[in-house]
Amino acid sequence: MNKLNLIKIGGNLIDDAIQLDSFLNRFAQLEGAKVLVHGGGKMATSMAEKMGLSVQMIEGRRITDASNLEIITMVYGGLINKKIVAQLQAHGSNALGLSGADGNSILAQKRVAAPIDFGFVGDITTVNTKSITALISLDIVPVMSPITHDGEGQLLNTNADTIAATVAAALTEHYDVHLHYCFDKDGVLENINDETSIIRTIDLQKYEQLKASENIAGGMLPKLHNCFEALKKGVQKVHVGGPKMFDKTSFYTKIEL
Amino acid sequence: MNKLNLIKIGGNLIDDAIQLDSFLNRFAQLEGAKVLVHGGGKMATSMAEKMGLSVQMIEGRRITDASNLEIITMVYGGLINKKIVAQLQAHGSNALGLSGADGNSILAQKRVAAPIDFGFVGDITTVNTKSITALISLDIVPVMSPITHDGEGQLLNTNADTIAATVAAALTEHYDVHLHYCFDKDGVLENINDETSIIRTIDLQKYEQLKASENIAGGMLPKLHNCFEALKKGVQKVHVGGPKMFDKTSFYTKIEL
Repeated sequence: MNKLNLIKIGGNLIDDAIQLDSFLNRFAQLEGAKVLVHGGGKMATSMAEKMGLSVQMIEGRRITDASNLEIITMVYGGLINKKIVAQLQAHGSNALGLSGADGNSILAQKRVAAPIDFGFVGDITTVNTKSITALISLDIVPVMSPITHDGEGQLLNTNADTIAATVAAALTEHYDVHLHYCFDKDGVLENINDETSIIRTIDLQKYEQLKASENIAGGMLPKLHNCFEALKKGVQKVHVGGPKMFDKTSFYTKIEL
Repeated sequence: MNKLNLIKIGGNLIDDAIQLDSFLNRFAQLEGAKVLVHGGGKMATSMAEKMGLSVQMIEGRRITDASNLEIITMVYGGLINKKIVAQLQAHGSNALGLSGADGNSILAQKRVAAPIDFGFVGDITTVNTKSITALISLDIVPVMSPITHDGEGQLLNTNADTIAATVAAALTEHYDVHLHYCFDKDGVLENINDETSIIRTIDLQKYEQLKASENIAGGMLPKLHNCFEALKKGVQKVHVGGPKMFDKTSFYTKIEL
């Protein structure tokens, strides 16, 4: 099978225009089949604030009410997605932006509203690999925003890390998939306060040890959970690293079962 | 050559959720190759107001400064485009949203800033029919938002009527193209104050007569200009009508050279 690189970008990497363009230039040079999945950075929150909307949090998690879903659709599906696509085109990559509704690429169901009603949040049920691979066979580079749909006209907010892992796993039917989580650190840090404490390899044993530790960044544990899920479902390689992780000389964290 | 229906929707039809869904249901039933182009309705203006942005107008035309381009990209490229795509999927049509940057489908150049600087407004230079027809050959229905790009990373605001006419003309290389401008009236009105005064046919002579008249809606003259441009470039049929214009019993205005 041919190799496919699926790369997820998020966090400060999206908010910092210079870093983002430098990453997109590198991504455009990558040869072979590839897919980009992007998160939203902080832009959705700042846009909600500009519009005087409050973001309700329960147990540290954002509640997506109807107004916040509109913001997410505008910022993730519109502004960020189209800017990335236009920049990739400028770097010579024939990018095409997708939400899960486009080409029916990702179906989800609205999360059950109990015990907590997270609002318009979708849990993925089906990845339409036929649609995605057909685009790739036209030499198109899919650029996926973290939005899914329920097939009945409702758009839903879905975590970008989860989209990356689930789409990567689904594409293993057609490709040897290498999944890369790319953010603003050069890998998973042993100690969140020490930028040089990059862990070179994380296996399941190390993962358990990190879960018990209190020094690892909060958002990293669900990301690692997604990494292991992808490996269990047949994704060949999973790496976590910085925007330069594709340079041969760069560090990154390798995730292994 | 096979027939292709290219339909442009705009105005109140986009702002009215019930009318829009009823139209999309009809559009989904249309057989054969088809493309939908949408405008923005009033949502971009109301979103700009919510965010405290002023919309500058010169000689009755909107100036697209950087902030307004962001709003347009969010509202047209994100919110409206993704909602339409999700609703078409619900009606069984495999829709996929595109800005001109996606698949490099429409290239434009920023309008020269003299005598008036319209800001980030794009005049179309190239329609990439290869990209659009490849999607159609996958049984995908392209849904185009009124955004183009310059190939160097800059998104641009382009009039949706012009996009419809220009894409329709470009696709005549591959299809017998029927272009339909669909809005909230049942056709072009002889008298803007009389909803029943639908003109059945407008040829070039009638067009000149309408230009001289003061009773026709202001926005209708540039739309008619686009209609005639499309006909001159080989589009087979051009109709202007309401959301029910595809019903056999409905009225519409036929444009003829």
